[in-house]
Amino acid sequence: MDYVELIAAKRDGKELSAEQVLALIEGFGTGEVSEAQMGALLMAIQLRGMTDGEIVALTAAFVRSGERIDLSKMPKAKVDRHSTGGVGDKVPLAVAPLVAACGVAVPMIAGRGRAHVGGTLDKIESIPGFNSALDIAGFQRVLAEAGVCISDAPPALAPADRAIGALRVATATEEAVPFIMAGILSKKLAAGIDALAVDVKVGRGSFTDTVQEGRDLADALSKLGAAAGRKVRTVLTNNDQPLGRMVGHALEVREAIDVLKGGGPPDVVQVTLLVATQMLTLTGAREDLAGKSLERALAAGKAAQVFERLIEVQGGDPKVVSDPARLPRADHQVAIKCDSSGYVQAVDAREIGTMVAGLAHARDELDHAVGMEVLVKIGDKVTAGDPVAILHVREPAQADQLKLRVRKAVVIKDAAPKPFELILK
Amino acid sequence: MDYVELIAAKRDGKELSAEQVLALIEGFGTGEVSEAQMGALLMAIQLRGMTDGEIVALTAAFVRSGERIDLSKMPKAKVDRHSTGGVGDKVPLAVAPLVAACGVAVPMIAGRGRAHVGGTLDKIESIPGFNSALDIAGFQRVLAEAGVCISDAPPALAPADRAIGALRVATATEEAVPFIMAGILSKKLAAGIDALAVDVKVGRGSFTDTVQEGRDLADALSKLGAAAGRKVRTVLTNNDQPLGRMVGHALEVREAIDVLKGGGPPDVVQVTLLVATQMLTLTGAREDLAGKSLERALAAGKAAQVFERLIEVQGGDPKVVSDPARLPRADHQVAIKCDSSGYVQAVDAREIGTMVAGLAHARDELDHAVGMEVLVKIGDKVTAGDPVAILHVREPAQADQLKLRVRKAVVIKDAAPKPFELILK
Repeated sequence: MDYVELIAAKRDGKELSAEQVLALIEGFGTGEVSEAQMGALLMAIQLRGMTDGEIVALTAAFVRSGERIDLSKMPKAKVDRHSTGGVGDKVPLAVAPLVAACGVAVPMIAGRGRAHVGGTLDKIESIPGFNSALDIAGFQRVLAEAGVCISDAPPALAPADRAIGALRVATATEEAVPFIMAGILSKKLAAGIDALAVDVKVGRGSFTDTVQEGRDLADALSKLGAAAGRKVRTVLTNNDQPLGRMVGHALEVREAIDVLKGGGPPDVVQVTLLVATQMLTLTGAREDLAGKSLERALAAGKAAQVFERLIEVQGGDPKVVSDPARLPRADHQVAIKCDSSGYVQAVDAREIGTMVAGLAHARDELDHAVGMEVLVKIGDKVTAGDPVAILHVREPAQADQLKLRVRKAVVIKDAAPKPFELILK
Repeated sequence: MDYVELIAAKRDGKELSAEQVLALIEGFGTGEVSEAQMGALLMAIQLRGMTDGEIVALTAAFVRSGERIDLSKMPKAKVDRHSTGGVGDKVPLAVAPLVAACGVAVPMIAGRGRAHVGGTLDKIESIPGFNSALDIAGFQRVLAEAGVCISDAPPALAPADRAIGALRVATATEEAVPFIMAGILSKKLAAGIDALAVDVKVGRGSFTDTVQEGRDLADALSKLGAAAGRKVRTVLTNNDQPLGRMVGHALEVREAIDVLKGGGPPDVVQVTLLVATQMLTLTGAREDLAGKSLERALAAGKAAQVFERLIEVQGGDPKVVSDPARLPRADHQVAIKCDSSGYVQAVDAREIGTMVAGLAHARDELDHAVGMEVLVKIGDKVTAGDPVAILHVREPAQADQLKLRVRKAVVIKDAAPKPFELILK
């Protein structure tokens, strides 16, 4: 195989065949394609893009680079979900045990935080003792025992995506969409899912600026799933303001527990039920019956019990569910008050996510305890002096430093804004 | 320095500062910029291009990566020439001793063949014993003793260009114009030239398809030279048909010797005098006096003597000048006859160059003896059965295999074509 010719073809915007894509990925694994060549190829793909067919081939090549988890002996349907990432998005933490409580296996592969967005793995690791780095055997064991697991992709799955991912960070090609999509789907396929629900986040807090971009991404993922023989359903949700009240690792686990106990902020509950319903209907359930099943699982406390069981099997402290005070807490809670009256026009999710990420990264190790409670939503009426947020910090000085930024992130105007549309499309 | 950010800037088509360009090239030298990062950067530059300022900075960074040859103690002006490469282009071999015979030092850095085009170094190495791989000390010694040298760039000059060049071959970025230009000029600057004449070849046999592209390249090289404080003059010459009669390494040396002895095909003589005149006028000579000086050097046999001296000092057999039969020769000369009558419409330089390159690469080592004598020029009147070329081959079977391709490369039509314009612009 003449690899230089293949790189030249992508450079010139031509389409590679499935065999050629596979040869490049396999060649990188064996060292026949050098790091310099992969760097050049990544940049060519970043700038020229890939056709649907090429992305299908890339996904298949990633899957082929590693092992597959064989879940065929498990009689239940296996469904995962993916979120493209948004500020305050603790939905995966609530959805996983909730759907499992309805009898569907959830072999959930989750990710780390990036930029202003916290990761599901980082959040769940705020539960003392929780092990989110399962190998294939552990993944299967937890899934068998709890009906659900939440883990980083076992290293043996799609190792080519991991190896190339490291190169993408170094070569300014992290945003290459074909690699993002193939990276997501290849690991889910290798983990043995039957179907996938995708929550495409749009707006300030997300990585997707416009509804059109979100739709394109959702369509592309659906097509890619279909090409791999898996049903994919997508929802588009609005992340202009943070989802729910809590932003921060342990704080978001707390809020997910609230939802599993039948409480929680209405927007988090709404998205959780929407994604969970999609996951159930992907297994063939009727939508109305799926909804009832979810309500029962919440009301009967079954969803919370599954979460306890999941935490226990993954080595964590299951008592956090009944007693969330066992989660890490920052010593200082400082309320930030607004200095004008009127209607909340905007609550800048990106800015809030950035502030919380800054707090979480202030120490050598990721700090799970810190974060922000956002007390207002777009459309709320406020009076000067009302608290709009509570900062959970290690030192009061940190709150002083952030006070003005918090106030600026919450935009207050005289006129009422347009109602916030949570579910898009 | 955040190298990822610099790569991202080029990815997005932004302009880097001179310091940033230098940091990337120096970082690659120290290993701080990885091969993957350089691969990605090369592809970004290939697809996004570089501004004039960036190319100036790249050239300076290449020069800074290595040593410089100090020719300041040599009182003569030092002028080199560069050809962008064309089929049958033996002009550098004739120009170097000719200009030196007129009292100008010619520290010539030449290159290897590529694709369908033979390289000046490959050609001169057909002279038995000739050493074209001079180090800095050897370069200075030959120049002092013969007033001219013809050599590959000493390895200590612009090593960054060499290291990156190897990566460019592997990453399908060989055609990245900023790197081509910076590569050419940096080595000439490091070799201590005062001025440079550039022969931009245009047409089938060259790497430049259109006159406009040729002009753009000529302008860019002139600007780049000016930015480095060196005068650059350019000519555009037409390489739609091969230059001269001979194509092949030893055959072209023979033809260059013919020119130095006052003979040679008119087109080779014309381009040789044009380039040589430019080199002399770059030193301040008046054009008419330069022309007379060149005529004298040829007529008095001085140019041929300088070539003998050059060959001798570089370890070669100087007697090839008086007795070209000492050059390597292929055993079989096979005439190819045309099968129709009319006017020669085209003599496809690319196709002829490709055939000769095929013959030269038929053995493990580059074969200097093989090649083709092209007996016709565009506009010539021929009769079916006239010989149009003589193939110099190792085995008669090789000529049989090429016969049809040679006939196809020489296009014969009833009507006379437009006259061939050798000197463009």
